Amino acid sequence: MSNQNLLLAPGPVQLHPEVQKILSLPMIHHRTPEFDAILKSALSGLQFLFQTKNPVFMQTSTGSGGMESLLINVLSPKDKVLAIVSGKFGERWADMAECFGADVHRLNIPWGEAVEPKQVQAFLQQNPDTEIVMTQACETSTATAHDIQKLGEVIHPSKALFLVDGITAVGAYPIPMDQWHIDGLVAGSQKAVMLPTGMSFVSFSEKAWKKIPQAQCLKFYFDIQKEFSANKKGETLFSSNVPLIRALDYVIGRIKILSIEKHFRQLKRRADYTRAMTTALSLTLYSKSPSDSVTALNLPPSMDGAKLREHLEKKYLVTVMGGQDQLKGKILRIGHMGYITDNDLHETTLRLAQGLNDFGQSTDIERITALSLKFLKESEIQ
Amino acid sequence: MSNQNLLLAPGPVQLHPEVQKILSLPMIHHRTPEFDAILKSALSGLQFLFQTKNPVFMQTSTGSGGMESLLINVLSPKDKVLAIVSGKFGERWADMAECFGADVHRLNIPWGEAVEPKQVQAFLQQNPDTEIVMTQACETSTATAHDIQKLGEVIHPSKALFLVDGITAVGAYPIPMDQWHIDGLVAGSQKAVMLPTGMSFVSFSEKAWKKIPQAQCLKFYFDIQKEFSANKKGETLFSSNVPLIRALDYVIGRIKILSIEKHFRQLKRRADYTRAMTTALSLTLYSKSPSDSVTALNLPPSMDGAKLREHLEKKYLVTVMGGQDQLKGKILRIGHMGYITDNDLHETTLRLAQGLNDFGQSTDIERITALSLKFLKESEIQ
Repeated sequence: MSNQNLLLAPGPVQLHPEVQKILSLPMIHHRTPEFDAILKSALSGLQFLFQTKNPVFMQTSTGSGGMESLLINVLSPKDKVLAIVSGKFGERWADMAECFGADVHRLNIPWGEAVEPKQVQAFLQQNPDTEIVMTQACETSTATAHDIQKLGEVIHPSKALFLVDGITAVGAYPIPMDQWHIDGLVAGSQKAVMLPTGMSFVSFSEKAWKKIPQAQCLKFYFDIQKEFSANKKGETLFSSNVPLIRALDYVIGRIKILSIEKHFRQLKRRADYTRAMTTALSLTLYSKSPSDSVTALNLPPSMDGAKLREHLEKKYLVTVMGGQDQLKGKILRIGHMGYITDNDLHETTLRLAQGLNDFGQSTDIERITALSLKFLKESEIQ
Repeated sequence: MSNQNLLLAPGPVQLHPEVQKILSLPMIHHRTPEFDAILKSALSGLQFLFQTKNPVFMQTSTGSGGMESLLINVLSPKDKVLAIVSGKFGERWADMAECFGADVHRLNIPWGEAVEPKQVQAFLQQNPDTEIVMTQACETSTATAHDIQKLGEVIHPSKALFLVDGITAVGAYPIPMDQWHIDGLVAGSQKAVMLPTGMSFVSFSEKAWKKIPQAQCLKFYFDIQKEFSANKKGETLFSSNVPLIRALDYVIGRIKILSIEKHFRQLKRRADYTRAMTTALSLTLYSKSPSDSVTALNLPPSMDGAKLREHLEKKYLVTVMGGQDQLKGKILRIGHMGYITDNDLHETTLRLAQGLNDFGQSTDIERITALSLKFLKESEIQ
């Protein structure tokens, strides 16, 4: 094993060496021709990433700030909102909508399971006055992917807007915004967009744009109409996040050169690899609808998962995440986003195997090594 | 003249080489012992920078997001607010308060002038129901410093909270929050804190903390009570801005080693130098109360200042800012914050002198060179 630090959390993620270089470039002012060109290219790149013909906006905030922006730009107090709650981030978004005065109906889904689109369809039939349906694309706390395409199909004919938190999805696997009838989509810099924490990105459909001018929630910093006006003049509404926007432009450019299909295949392969290694380690997957951006694996019931996680970090220098709330100590979550080499994948497996050994779960390191190398070799993307 | 790019705007600012290095470090997770220690140190460092015993909070946002946070955490709709408006940023803050439903009274001060504390005192006597008085410490658009200490003295005995936008002040010159009876103070990363754009910092007095739990403005992302709870557990409420917090910790540590008094003297010296060079160039200062963080100088009435600014950027690779709105084309603004060497100061003066020559304002480069070097040598800080 190497003594290299490894970060395979579901965000923040390891950075491409070129991104690290870009982040250390001398500062330039955001009102310069040099930056104007970068901003224009990055804004257009975001449309490519979101697969939308509508404008995508960037904001200096964490992903949660982006979730707030997406919501309050279309929300009025007392609006009926259906919130699909399948984990921590679903809870946060529902809490947020309540905080801003919405009439929130929570569709609670057992953790680790995906929502059944028919349930949403039934709710909309019984509640035709629903203004917003919102869900995570991937619920990060349970590593579970929802079927956004099917949800879009059942929500589209209603008056409701379909808002999707794509923070651990956009850039990790296909979420074609326009094609799947998504009315509002948010992404975050430190997840599938492969940058440090610091920016969120939001976009709205034409259906949503009809509602934006009437939305009564008060906003200033997150006012997307003002941001749109600024973007039309080639500026951001407030000081531009120069280092992250430069790096964003690079990241999207790199995905374009590789082709987005190949980029998605790389993440899918990492997810497939992690699932295969989970089996090889005699463990099981937690989620019934595993995401390609993050994998959650069940730990043996007798094992203190929180201590294992700490042990992996301290002794083996690999940071993965544990479970939250009801899953505390019961699962490990391994992220597939960011800059991850095959060697990183292999090392993570070996260190995890060693850690499990240290905690009394006997694993055959030689066998695991062979299986890992075999998978990586046979699945190589040309 | 060298061909080095120079950025002497009133934010964003040039970065210390060590800050550039820190920004390019490999990512670490924000839930690790390594980061816990950095966060703790940076939060305590912010108290040192704000000169307050109360907690200071960090948020991923631009300065404007910080202004919003400072305001809405103490504001309820219909509250009577006195907004001192002496330029663009005063206007923005007053607009923001109106957006959130406040009963805003604008105390309009001619651009380039400081508010007379007696005017504020008179308003408070006539309006004892005023809940908030707010002002910029330095109005960046006019490079004008207000007398925050005296304002604090007249506001303190009233029921009103005194909110100060210290974005181009905190870290540039003394604004001792507690001593000057400031009830809410906001700083921004890309100005006097010498980092890239991306974070804002806010703090509240005990008087303000009595109001925070009752403040009716809706907030989720900028909810400072929740942020406080998270900080008590050694975390930030949302994903931590790892690269900027690491760099922040370095910057404050560096100021501590140098001593904050010496750090402030460095900025004061840059301001004094710029004022002296303004005179040497046969130009005049715009502001009647010049700030130590940024200097605005009047251009000859016949000169197109916007074109001169562009020319300086294109031909001489030096970025300074022009005027906004009523000052468009009439002034240049030169920033003193960030990492600026004596050579940068000298080069900026020479390039500005050349630019003025190109625009028909005859300047004696040899004489300016001599005056610049003389000032820099004689004013050296030991």
